[in-house]
Amino acid sequence: MKVLVIGGDGYCGWATALYLSNRGYEVGILDSLVRRYWDMQLGVDTLTPILPIQERIQCWQALTGKTIDLFVGDITDYDFLIKSLRAFEPGAIVHFGEQRSAPYSMIDREHAVLTQVNNVVGTLNLLYAMKEDFPDCHLVKLGTMGEYGTPNIDIEEGYITIEHNGRKDTLPYPKQPGSFYHLSKVHDSHNIHFACRIWGLRATDLNQGVVYGVLTEETGMDERLINRLDYDGVFGTALNRFCIQAAIGHPLTVYGKGGQTRGFLDIRDTVRCIEIAIANPAEAGEFRVFNQFTEMFSVGDLARKVQEAGKSLGLKVEIHHLENPRVEKEEHYFNAKNTKLIDLGLHPHYLSDALLDSLLNFAIKYKDRVNQNEILPKVTWRR
Amino acid sequence: MKVLVIGGDGYCGWATALYLSNRGYEVGILDSLVRRYWDMQLGVDTLTPILPIQERIQCWQALTGKTIDLFVGDITDYDFLIKSLRAFEPGAIVHFGEQRSAPYSMIDREHAVLTQVNNVVGTLNLLYAMKEDFPDCHLVKLGTMGEYGTPNIDIEEGYITIEHNGRKDTLPYPKQPGSFYHLSKVHDSHNIHFACRIWGLRATDLNQGVVYGVLTEETGMDERLINRLDYDGVFGTALNRFCIQAAIGHPLTVYGKGGQTRGFLDIRDTVRCIEIAIANPAEAGEFRVFNQFTEMFSVGDLARKVQEAGKSLGLKVEIHHLENPRVEKEEHYFNAKNTKLIDLGLHPHYLSDALLDSLLNFAIKYKDRVNQNEILPKVTWRR
Repeated sequence: MKVLVIGGDGYCGWATALYLSNRGYEVGILDSLVRRYWDMQLGVDTLTPILPIQERIQCWQALTGKTIDLFVGDITDYDFLIKSLRAFEPGAIVHFGEQRSAPYSMIDREHAVLTQVNNVVGTLNLLYAMKEDFPDCHLVKLGTMGEYGTPNIDIEEGYITIEHNGRKDTLPYPKQPGSFYHLSKVHDSHNIHFACRIWGLRATDLNQGVVYGVLTEETGMDERLINRLDYDGVFGTALNRFCIQAAIGHPLTVYGKGGQTRGFLDIRDTVRCIEIAIANPAEAGEFRVFNQFTEMFSVGDLARKVQEAGKSLGLKVEIHHLENPRVEKEEHYFNAKNTKLIDLGLHPHYLSDALLDSLLNFAIKYKDRVNQNEILPKVTWRR
Repeated sequence: MKVLVIGGDGYCGWATALYLSNRGYEVGILDSLVRRYWDMQLGVDTLTPILPIQERIQCWQALTGKTIDLFVGDITDYDFLIKSLRAFEPGAIVHFGEQRSAPYSMIDREHAVLTQVNNVVGTLNLLYAMKEDFPDCHLVKLGTMGEYGTPNIDIEEGYITIEHNGRKDTLPYPKQPGSFYHLSKVHDSHNIHFACRIWGLRATDLNQGVVYGVLTEETGMDERLINRLDYDGVFGTALNRFCIQAAIGHPLTVYGKGGQTRGFLDIRDTVRCIEIAIANPAEAGEFRVFNQFTEMFSVGDLARKVQEAGKSLGLKVEIHHLENPRVEKEEHYFNAKNTKLIDLGLHPHYLSDALLDSLLNFAIKYKDRVNQNEILPKVTWRR
């Protein structure tokens, strides 16, 4: 089976492309490389020394004998997209190719517009391309748990059955996203759902939690295959950033009270979840939603776990509560369902002391690459 | 109070601008006039001979002594938008300025992308402009009843209280829009809701039903103030189109079985609803949703009403059931709430024989302007 990984040069995308290649799928990577460009513009960089995508792929072939096709370009350019699809002929498309940072989308009006236009138009183009030439192809689209916000009732997987005034229906779960980025994913979900309904396309929306970790079997084979690991205030995410902060002796930056609870998962589970979705495609006309996370933690809990793990490695780790740059509830109910991927065979890597040790040691190995000026959040929601 | 009507050259916008001006509001019209350009590109035209916006406004001033400021430009151009707002200094902004046709958005990929980018970016720009310079201004945004789709439970006004697994919350009503146009309005609603939440903006989302009729007190004062009336397959809507078809002896074009039920309202109620929203602004931080329609009809019911009204005028009116160009349920439950505007003082003009007579006679008056080739739907959802 041929799988095209859009955004295959990114954090989740690169790990997924290699994992699928290793598992025997014929993999293509389509990526505009614009994320590397945004890093330059913002003056930020991944902790890890990542090679150009062309060299990464050459290295993978040298090590394993497996080839990965590369299409460099932007899916908002429909001509490029359709030509690439016709050349590759995918049976499944994994779509990571979006601007994926909430703070980036909140920098200013231009970045909000860029994020929504980039993400919505890219996905619309993909839907039209599938309708035209690849109606049986399975779209595996990355959504986010952040689409749901923090409602005071249990979060179901994409849909909720509502009884109201003596009648009943199963409807899309209400969405209360918390940034212009998260909103773009909600827009995508509605657009994809519609395309499945009217054109009979098949799609799986993976509402992913916050991903942590860096090593997968494949990216750990050789330093030239190393994955990116973001710790800066724009692209860094909670647990990964904490480990890097601990490694360099920087206080862990908890926003506000730290009671914000979210779904999390190990990157080794991300790649497996994608494979599960591909191996069990949605039906024609079906818009299927899986919540892709394995455990729920509050941000404060994670900081304390990193503090403790750091102690066992001899690191003195402080926790600082910063004024919250975001507008979000800092204490709230949060209970989200995540049984669908487990029912299909996911065996989670739960967060362990071993993982924290490994991630901390990884961060220590590369700590000389850290730029202290990149760490604190500079983007605020209110202004 | 100064009210800026964005899209004030259009069907609802023009009627609203004159009504508000007549009621003593200081009115400005901001319009890119792109709708007139799209008509040219599609080779369609309104039934009525509408004057250029500049002449319409001059005529209004000559008749009433009231001035209307005019800003010609596009709100997707932020510089133009912010300059216009700073020049006019509105206390309320009525936003009709979007691509508003479902079939137009379904012509092809380009029109789907144009519709979503145009509508979403225009509204995002407006939100940022308000945040920057007019944080107390009240945004009155035109949404559509089509955002809800046709769920099997009662449709509430914007939000629904859900009891689930022993807990309870009031959440945004789930949306199942039926075209890329309707989707763009759902995207807008989510974006505006978020902006109210994080920036404390005040907004009213008017989920309007299908508007019918053409005469308001103001647009009927002089033929030079006449409103547009669309009957073509792209911009025409159910009841108005039926009356024009009846006037020229064309069979009424009911799509499919005709059991599609929707909310409808008289254009004289549209303008009054806008005034009610302006006169009772949302609170700071509030995203308020009103369902703006007065009655529910199935498309088949409306065709039969027009047939009967035509008979009394001596017209022989046939009803044809065309193969449905859309993907939608043709028989379904539909019960939507609409009490909020009535509670604030709306006295509806319910659909009457008198209105149908008047609309039919109006159509007969201009029937020589009808282009028969424009009537049938050419855009289909499935392909």
